[in-house]
Amino acid sequence: MTRIVGAVASPFMDDSGQCRVLILAASPEVDGGRHPAKRIEGEPVVASCDLVSDGHDAVAGVLLCRGPAWRDWTRIPLVPKGNDRFTASFVPDVVGHWEISFEAWIDEYSTWSHGIQKKAQAGQDISIELLAGARLIADGAARSSSPILKRVAAAVADAKLPSRERLANALSPEVAQLMALHPDLTKASRLERPLAITVDRPLARFGAWYELFPRSAGGAGKHGTFADAERMLAYAASMGFDVVYLPPIHPIGIAFRKGKNNTLDAKPDDVGSPWAIGGPAGGHKSVHPELGTLEDFRRFVKKGKELGLEIALDIAFQASPDHPYVREHPEWFEKRPDGSIQYAENPPKKYQDVYPFDFECADWRGLWNELASVFFFWIEQGVTVFRVDNPHTKSLRFWEWCIAEVKRRCPEAIFLAEAFTRPKVMYALAKRGFSQSYTYFTWRTTKHELTRYLTELVHPPVSEFFRPAFWPNTPDILPEHLQFGGRPMFLQRLILAATLSSTYGIYGPAFELMEHVARPGSEEYIDNEKYELKSWDIDDPDSLRDVITLVNRIRRENPPLYDNASLVFHHTDNEQLICYSKRDEASDTAILVVVNLDPLHRHSGWVDLDLGKLGIRPDERYQVHDLLGDTRHHWTGPRNYVELDPHVMPAHVFRVRRHVRTEHDFEYFL
Amino acid sequence: MTRIVGAVASPFMDDSGQCRVLILAASPEVDGGRHPAKRIEGEPVVASCDLVSDGHDAVAGVLLCRGPAWRDWTRIPLVPKGNDRFTASFVPDVVGHWEISFEAWIDEYSTWSHGIQKKAQAGQDISIELLAGARLIADGAARSSSPILKRVAAAVADAKLPSRERLANALSPEVAQLMALHPDLTKASRLERPLAITVDRPLARFGAWYELFPRSAGGAGKHGTFADAERMLAYAASMGFDVVYLPPIHPIGIAFRKGKNNTLDAKPDDVGSPWAIGGPAGGHKSVHPELGTLEDFRRFVKKGKELGLEIALDIAFQASPDHPYVREHPEWFEKRPDGSIQYAENPPKKYQDVYPFDFECADWRGLWNELASVFFFWIEQGVTVFRVDNPHTKSLRFWEWCIAEVKRRCPEAIFLAEAFTRPKVMYALAKRGFSQSYTYFTWRTTKHELTRYLTELVHPPVSEFFRPAFWPNTPDILPEHLQFGGRPMFLQRLILAATLSSTYGIYGPAFELMEHVARPGSEEYIDNEKYELKSWDIDDPDSLRDVITLVNRIRRENPPLYDNASLVFHHTDNEQLICYSKRDEASDTAILVVVNLDPLHRHSGWVDLDLGKLGIRPDERYQVHDLLGDTRHHWTGPRNYVELDPHVMPAHVFRVRRHVRTEHDFEYFL
Repeated sequence: MTRIVGAVASPFMDDSGQCRVLILAASPEVDGGRHPAKRIEGEPVVASCDLVSDGHDAVAGVLLCRGPAWRDWTRIPLVPKGNDRFTASFVPDVVGHWEISFEAWIDEYSTWSHGIQKKAQAGQDISIELLAGARLIADGAARSSSPILKRVAAAVADAKLPSRERLANALSPEVAQLMALHPDLTKASRLERPLAITVDRPLARFGAWYELFPRSAGGAGKHGTFADAERMLAYAASMGFDVVYLPPIHPIGIAFRKGKNNTLDAKPDDVGSPWAIGGPAGGHKSVHPELGTLEDFRRFVKKGKELGLEIALDIAFQASPDHPYVREHPEWFEKRPDGSIQYAENPPKKYQDVYPFDFECADWRGLWNELASVFFFWIEQGVTVFRVDNPHTKSLRFWEWCIAEVKRRCPEAIFLAEAFTRPKVMYALAKRGFSQSYTYFTWRTTKHELTRYLTELVHPPVSEFFRPAFWPNTPDILPEHLQFGGRPMFLQRLILAATLSSTYGIYGPAFELMEHVARPGSEEYIDNEKYELKSWDIDDPDSLRDVITLVNRIRRENPPLYDNASLVFHHTDNEQLICYSKRDEASDTAILVVVNLDPLHRHSGWVDLDLGKLGIRPDERYQVHDLLGDTRHHWTGPRNYVELDPHVMPAHVFRVRRHVRTEHDFEYFL
Repeated sequence: MTRIVGAVASPFMDDSGQCRVLILAASPEVDGGRHPAKRIEGEPVVASCDLVSDGHDAVAGVLLCRGPAWRDWTRIPLVPKGNDRFTASFVPDVVGHWEISFEAWIDEYSTWSHGIQKKAQAGQDISIELLAGARLIADGAARSSSPILKRVAAAVADAKLPSRERLANALSPEVAQLMALHPDLTKASRLERPLAITVDRPLARFGAWYELFPRSAGGAGKHGTFADAERMLAYAASMGFDVVYLPPIHPIGIAFRKGKNNTLDAKPDDVGSPWAIGGPAGGHKSVHPELGTLEDFRRFVKKGKELGLEIALDIAFQASPDHPYVREHPEWFEKRPDGSIQYAENPPKKYQDVYPFDFECADWRGLWNELASVFFFWIEQGVTVFRVDNPHTKSLRFWEWCIAEVKRRCPEAIFLAEAFTRPKVMYALAKRGFSQSYTYFTWRTTKHELTRYLTELVHPPVSEFFRPAFWPNTPDILPEHLQFGGRPMFLQRLILAATLSSTYGIYGPAFELMEHVARPGSEEYIDNEKYELKSWDIDDPDSLRDVITLVNRIRRENPPLYDNASLVFHHTDNEQLICYSKRDEASDTAILVVVNLDPLHRHSGWVDLDLGKLGIRPDERYQVHDLLGDTRHHWTGPRNYVELDPHVMPAHVFRVRRHVRTEHDFEYFL
């Protein structure tokens, strides 16, 4: 005989036994609600869930949403989309931490209404059903205090009236609407835990960034100041950038200072690496004296704002041996057995000019609070955009806490994770709060690589939490293809970055001046600006400045490029031709890009367009207007010929224009 | 200036700030741990997670597992699989509710060991590093009370010994092993909540089911008894079935009893529908008097066991108006406004012979407890396999509670959900505890439909919680293709069901006798056995009995058919030929099936085999041995010709035999 073990009956877990509707597969979500999804202020949030219930009763429900610091939920009716899926949307109108939830119930009135109509149509006696309906409507009247429902309930219950009239009363649109507005929620189900949504300002998703070293703005050999660098702000603004970001601006340490080309024996006049933070003049809340004063910096920020530029700061949580923290808080660093502080290393390499913080030290709370206060300090100086240096070498739990803490008090803050590391660490950082992330784009060059990587980035689950920032170069990385690909490669990488990703950036003026000489055998610039002052001739006639200006203007003027969600790749019959498009539904505009990935040779081929993704009907005539070359082609159907000479321009960036015939038979393209 | 709102610092959520390793994407899981994953007793459970940490320190961790009612966790070291993924496995050796979790930490010793070796290789001074290592080993000695570690720690710290000797001591395999065995867990991370695994006995996944009406076993016109039906047990056993399942065996109601062909005016001698449960002789815990006594039933179950058969009962939670519950617990049913009990309906259809339970009534706890006790009652009679009738018309929360409750006390219990309903409801039932589920296979007939549906079923996430049971027919469903497809169609559907799904079943003897006449315009049998006694000639020479016997023998003898996880479809160049295989890694055996889906015409074509999935090398000669026709073919390479005449046999079921050449040059096939 089979054994039956244990007590006769176990207690019921909770009182939810009467709540028949299950709320499942709610979205947007990241890891089942463990992390917030990311959205943009002013754009609709479409929220969905499955409402699954036993039997055939009608279900109904609402989306609940709540903005930052709201006490009460806003209720928005859910609309069925088929296959038990329900949807509603709302527009978050302030940045900050939003929450959504769902509530659902059996809709007794709709169920009854559906049943009695079928019975009446079949000619059955419905007298008892009418009494049941009267009861439901009377309950609704009690919940709503609606005199209309009260009156109708009485009429529906009135056996002296003809059935047909009672039924018509009970089913009137007005009654149906009132009943829907005042459902019986005593057996309603709620999502177990609300889902969080981080609502950011548009710059968190769409922006062109320009990185520069202000100290190089001084002119031949002279250390530049913020005042000198204001000239560079005007230059970046003239190219249409949105953000200028600076390497660390704090005092640079003296001990173990690096010389030119990262040498260990710095000369007395070597300026050192801005990432060796902290000296006699202060640490993370101070300005390097040679750049100017804190007041100079505030003026620099103000100047940027006047030019339409935000200033982003590079926040690198590490200390030079001369950092005040080393003296004041030795407990925040790891000690070696000889009592000295552990410097950074990647054995056998040693970085004796840099002390990492020990994020798991005994006083981790003290350390974490101090580091968070660094962000607040710079927010008070007018900076809300932060590029975080090597976040993957700092505690992931720290970032989760710190970013939430900063954004709670300053929801406008934007954090860019400068992490080039293993894929799961990249994503873990993004889930823990970074608004944007560096990517592997820097090394993805073939059609297959780009297609595969972008397909991963622009779709859920990744797109719910990870916003890519595409950088063709950085002060740390001069990728091999830029070393050897010449002007066509610089152009190609610029256009790919700026059109594949709504956020992109370049390290300049190195980029537009096509600086391409590396330390041999490496992907690092020779005579790197990280260790010395550079003198850039921004007026060089070969500069890519004008193309960059044009590309940034195309980005601003074309809403499809504001986001990545609509990115679609189209087939081409040539491995060197990549073709993709983005479309903005609201403005019914589409951008179609074709890039020749070969920097050496002219390529031609046929593209097979998925016309539906461009908003074009199969038989429709349309125009593709190349915004780079200002040429126009009339196309019909999906299959079209393209030819690109990289030495002229390695890409088409087409605005797709639909053909319109007016009533006077005058034709034009939108 | 940007506003900063809120308090200066918010409290830290918990003390986990020092636990640097994140444990992510743990599996097996269903909905992030909301429901148990399903596994089989005696088979390895492979558990995995990502261990993601900042920086480059070595991480280590263990899988924790815990059987039913164990107090302590068993710890199994995690093995890295690349890309931050880690894995370990264990074999659950008892059925029941298991739990797994993960624990992970920074491996200080491995990190140190890795670094010091690189430094030593680079010829750097390692004296301070040796002291750091000595400290780590001394800590390990303290944790483990290991005299070896204590001695080694002293030797490594001993500056009088040569560095090389101290290093060799510190890195010896013995020390490494002891340090790995006794990690410092003070900063270890744990999964937030353990993941649950339901471990079932093998029958939950692999079994051939045979449904029969015992009351038809009486012979011409006589109501059969359990004693009569013992003959049918021998018959089912002779065909190689594992489970015989019976429609409800409880007393059948008199009020509104259905006559033959579901008519409303039953004659006095009409036997009624077994699903109209409950009469003067009792309800769900009683046996229909015409079938015999409870003791007769227990003998029937015992007889089945002797023949290697389990008896499954159909549990239908509904009551005829004559059910004792109606009198004793009217509060468990819904009332109509006239005081009568609400019968089942699907407007305008009425089922006045059936009262549904009101699962959300005020006394839902009393009702639920009583219904759970029905299962316990039959478990006490020796039945642990239950086919649940229409579970999707009963509260989903009820099933979650009830099945957990039954399996907690009787983990051997198996529940088959007889739900043919919307996809999300099907899956919701499976997640809430059903061991197996009916499927849409019954209506999936084309290559495209079968390929697509099976691909969904056999892969995660679905395969983690949903175990399909394939039924070509049931007493409720005579699908159109069986009505018109003749013997080839019956054979085809049998072979598809029995080889695509590790669990399948037929309703017999209707199936093997190819009963195919439907009520016109419907998919329902004419003169349905649900409403009358039938007399089946099981010795009919046209019966499919022998083929069924062969198919069941092939299933038992070939481990690849015990499971669905290895199912792969292979390309064929003929839309009417479907080709698929399953492989068992442990026994290195593979079954390859080709079915002609056209019941009318002979078809031929070329199959393109994915040889790797069959365990065959690209250049290897192999034999395919048709276990249905006992013919053998020698094949080489992926592309091979097949031809199937449905009037002979619509399928090949090949055992793939690898070619072996012995040292004496004698060749044979495994």
